[in-house]
Amino acid sequence: MPASRDFEEMWRDLAPVGRSASSGGYYRQPWASAETELRAWFVEQCAARGLTVETDGIGNQVAWWGDGEGPGVLTGSHLDSVLDGGAYDGPLGVVSALAALDALRDRGVTPARPIGIGVFVEEEGSRFGRACLGSRLVTGATTWDQAKELTDRDGVFLADAIAGAGLDPSAGLLSLDRVGTFVELHVEQGRDLVDRDVAVGLASEIWPHGRWRFDFAGQANHAGTTRMEDRHDPMLTYAMTALAANKQARLAGQRATFGRLAVEPNGTNAVPSLVTAWLDARASSDDALASLVAEVQRQADDRAGRDGTSLVVTPESVSGSVVFDADLAARLAALGGWPVIPTQAGHDAGILSAAGISTAMVFVRNPTGISHSPDEHAGTADCLAGVEALADVLAELAGSADLA
Amino acid sequence: MPASRDFEEMWRDLAPVGRSASSGGYYRQPWASAETELRAWFVEQCAARGLTVETDGIGNQVAWWGDGEGPGVLTGSHLDSVLDGGAYDGPLGVVSALAALDALRDRGVTPARPIGIGVFVEEEGSRFGRACLGSRLVTGATTWDQAKELTDRDGVFLADAIAGAGLDPSAGLLSLDRVGTFVELHVEQGRDLVDRDVAVGLASEIWPHGRWRFDFAGQANHAGTTRMEDRHDPMLTYAMTALAANKQARLAGQRATFGRLAVEPNGTNAVPSLVTAWLDARASSDDALASLVAEVQRQADDRAGRDGTSLVVTPESVSGSVVFDADLAARLAALGGWPVIPTQAGHDAGILSAAGISTAMVFVRNPTGISHSPDEHAGTADCLAGVEALADVLAELAGSADLA
Repeated sequence: MPASRDFEEMWRDLAPVGRSASSGGYYRQPWASAETELRAWFVEQCAARGLTVETDGIGNQVAWWGDGEGPGVLTGSHLDSVLDGGAYDGPLGVVSALAALDALRDRGVTPARPIGIGVFVEEEGSRFGRACLGSRLVTGATTWDQAKELTDRDGVFLADAIAGAGLDPSAGLLSLDRVGTFVELHVEQGRDLVDRDVAVGLASEIWPHGRWRFDFAGQANHAGTTRMEDRHDPMLTYAMTALAANKQARLAGQRATFGRLAVEPNGTNAVPSLVTAWLDARASSDDALASLVAEVQRQADDRAGRDGTSLVVTPESVSGSVVFDADLAARLAALGGWPVIPTQAGHDAGILSAAGISTAMVFVRNPTGISHSPDEHAGTADCLAGVEALADVLAELAGSADLA
Repeated sequence: MPASRDFEEMWRDLAPVGRSASSGGYYRQPWASAETELRAWFVEQCAARGLTVETDGIGNQVAWWGDGEGPGVLTGSHLDSVLDGGAYDGPLGVVSALAALDALRDRGVTPARPIGIGVFVEEEGSRFGRACLGSRLVTGATTWDQAKELTDRDGVFLADAIAGAGLDPSAGLLSLDRVGTFVELHVEQGRDLVDRDVAVGLASEIWPHGRWRFDFAGQANHAGTTRMEDRHDPMLTYAMTALAANKQARLAGQRATFGRLAVEPNGTNAVPSLVTAWLDARASSDDALASLVAEVQRQADDRAGRDGTSLVVTPESVSGSVVFDADLAARLAALGGWPVIPTQAGHDAGILSAAGISTAMVFVRNPTGISHSPDEHAGTADCLAGVEALADVLAELAGSADLA
């Protein structure tokens, strides 16, 4: 096996791309330079394996191996990161897909069905605020007419960002016609596999989750001369809301996070006029999620009344519950005696599943459970176990002479 | 009187410079284009009055009228604004100084002492975080060695920002040797004059005040998969601290504001690793201010212990109590029967007073008390009354044949 195909060498190739020298975390925002470099790296890796990459008009990529009969098996993940994210979230699935293809060839497998390796753009929604934007557009869950109105934090329109990366949205989107089954390998973002003491697991479901923008508006004023009782300070309404969201989620075993803020005018000596905060909320059912967000908003409205501020809540990127194909998960889990576990994280696999494609996810153990952080980690032995597990899954799904 | 010297015409000249089309507020940050335009405008206005402007190496400006005997009387204010600030805070003092000079000439006054009109840079500290930076450097309250380490939000060093505005810090600073007395006219930033139903007042004192940077550090993590009880979320520590600061200040009749925030990584789906928040605090005595900040920090530390986060507090730009020359204030107040009132806002006048220069402030009524906001306002009749009051004050201080 050539060194270029080795998992660890691919991992070392990727290590410096988009890494912050100060935090060690990754900034691989879509359609910016690091992500463009990763797209070129993917083309090179596929070329080294004799595969041709199709890149669509927005940067989604797929390379197919084999032209066997019937619907194919797509595997892969994403290469973008959250702001200051970890190395594994996304890239582990892409590198493992390439390494699993190598493993299948080493095993002498000739798949009866084509196997594709895919990369979806803007999975994290870190730039345009819509998670899984690439797979949403490809499946039609989001239309281009909806997406083209999106702007990033600097006011750049989506189409201009894409064009700036040398892509042309009018060139069209990836077709999923050839995809019979989708399998996404991903680093686990919790500690279920640690608790179960196994390196690999299959996914049962994705919790419903979403993002809601809370615009708290008040009255800008002088921080020194304005008496406390004369203020309409939206920062206070926000602060109480952040504490309330945390408490509600904690009491119910759900998740609520305010991790992103924008303050106007954001001056030290001025009471703010506007605090915009994004709520990331997740719960075990659609109803529980709706109740959680409604309760946070109720408490925020109540406090706004007392602060003399106002609140507008706008849903962004809300995803309902996704239950993966249970028969498929059970069949694949049996290959290695792997557990089947839920996740609270959104994935392109959830979007493809919701679009009616039979979908499975393979998780690789994360010793600390930490993710979306420079501290995100997975052990090399576990990653290699993940590659072998993915190869087993692909062989099972694509069928082959030796497994038939 | 030429139209160019008219108060209202000067006001109209300034209205569009650095104004936001969306909010109507002003962005006149030091050493950026709008402020450079204002510096040129000041030179033109002085030239139209036969005065020559001296601009020092960092952009402080002064123009002297007359070369009479003895120490001179300096008046003026600043032209920079907070982010999204009002039209009056600063410019009213500069425009009124020019208009008062016109009024003195109209009255046929020939001052026995020279009268200077001055403009100090970066009074608001909106760019480099140090309020009254221009007057602090001129008086030596801050040294250049201290200031040159300052960077703005984009990481630009002070010296580079100044050089970018076509200035050369090595050219030296304004000399105050000629200044016997300083008088700053300013829009009031509270409602004392409204309550007293008068257009003009004199200042008695400035409350001690300052800025403290609170760095709340936690553990970045996935907003979906990390259980609430496993988090070390610095946003929660911050939120409780913002509410505590407000409550402490409210109970004690003091001021505490968190108006500026920076969040890392500031991603919707990540628990933050770092929340940096700036506390603006003011109190009626140095001891009360120290106690207020200590109590806020104590509550923040306590919550940090519960959240598993950490806190570092760094004082920035702390100013002790300033009591203006009481005899001078009484003498000037008697000219118009004006009240003498305190303020909670910092001013260059406070810096010059602390440097041992006999100093007074003239306030002009603000109908709503709102300041550091696009809604800041003063009525034209009150502004013109302010100009006449300033002319009376300058005539009194500079002496003259007709008043002798």
